[in-house]
Amino acid sequence: MVEEAKLLGTYASFLNVRIEIALKLKGIQYEYIEEDLSNMSALLLKYNPVHKKVPVFVHNGKPVAESLVILEYIDETWKDHPILPKHPYDRAIARFWAKFVDEKRERRRATELKIIEEAGEQMKILENELKGKEFFGGETIGYLDIVVFSVAYWFQVLIQVFGVEFLPEEKFPVVCKWIGRLLDIDVIKSCVPPREKHLAYIKARIEDARAASK
Amino acid sequence: MVEEAKLLGTYASFLNVRIEIALKLKGIQYEYIEEDLSNMSALLLKYNPVHKKVPVFVHNGKPVAESLVILEYIDETWKDHPILPKHPYDRAIARFWAKFVDEKRERRRATELKIIEEAGEQMKILENELKGKEFFGGETIGYLDIVVFSVAYWFQVLIQVFGVEFLPEEKFPVVCKWIGRLLDIDVIKSCVPPREKHLAYIKARIEDARAASK
Repeated sequence: MVEEAKLLGTYASFLNVRIEIALKLKGIQYEYIEEDLSNMSALLLKYNPVHKKVPVFVHNGKPVAESLVILEYIDETWKDHPILPKHPYDRAIARFWAKFVDEKRERRRATELKIIEEAGEQMKILENELKGKEFFGGETIGYLDIVVFSVAYWFQVLIQVFGVEFLPEEKFPVVCKWIGRLLDIDVIKSCVPPREKHLAYIKARIEDARAASK
Repeated sequence: MVEEAKLLGTYASFLNVRIEIALKLKGIQYEYIEEDLSNMSALLLKYNPVHKKVPVFVHNGKPVAESLVILEYIDETWKDHPILPKHPYDRAIARFWAKFVDEKRERRRATELKIIEEAGEQMKILENELKGKEFFGGETIGYLDIVVFSVAYWFQVLIQVFGVEFLPEEKFPVVCKWIGRLLDIDVIKSCVPPREKHLAYIKARIEDARAASK
């Protein structure tokens, strides 16, 4: 059977990018399908009827939703270039921090006022976890690098729109060097939207949201 | 090396019970340590400094927190009686629903007024998923059975305190039969607190909370 892999996503989504990085690290060919969340395709409604959200990864016609679940599926299906650590304990630690990052993000939605403060506290804890390591995954990037990068880098760009520096180097030297190392990797480079286009996109979405709330 | 397994928990916690069921299904000896969350032990603060919550599973001195992460760790460490399905796609589906159950629960905390309505909607979706199956895990209980049971059964007891029937059989015939099948299994029986003691415990906790909020 010819493998068929599709990714349903939206432009510059930090959750998509997790899946794209994993697929590219493993050298898996896939078709990317851009979704318009204000006018969802029949495909998205069919493949993720519960949440109606992207990303959805479709492998040989079978859909998987939720970015962390998709990452595990991809790692178990294509064994080359494993992204989760090998030892069960290291895997547990990586999963613990991934959940920590995503939970904080989900809670942040509810209390936007404290957004920068809480994200900063979270990054301080992760700065500490990363000390003395090249990557969360050890000497090469892995699952937790993908998950934390998607949040830290995307948030950094988002906050820049408001003229605030989210990760000043003097406060986050370890995380800043780590982001720099990641941005030097070809696969990562190819998954990160050009900065100016990304900023313009976020500004347009914020304008849309403001117009809609009037 | 002699294996050393400890579980830090609190009485009648639905998150503990997940870990206890998994350990007992696999026949792993462990020491249970009761925690008082109003006066946490140095052990708990040392082992889960980020969340300061139970359950924490400690294996040969190394702690793992977060119930779903612990279940995966246990399944990867002790291969007998696997609880997650074997095929990557089935594993992804089990993980998707486990996340669905826990996310809903976390959101419910924020909007207590809609608690019964939302929990009922969630159970309707799961009722549909379970149709035609003995267990979520197929012919034997597995990861998703443990996760959903802990929420459905515990919630059923909690709601009973308020004189409401959470899962009426005419509305949830599949889930009710499934809960009955689970309660017939010796390992499950040994992990579920006696109903009267459990109800009394919940009532006392509600009284404590009311007194504290005055």
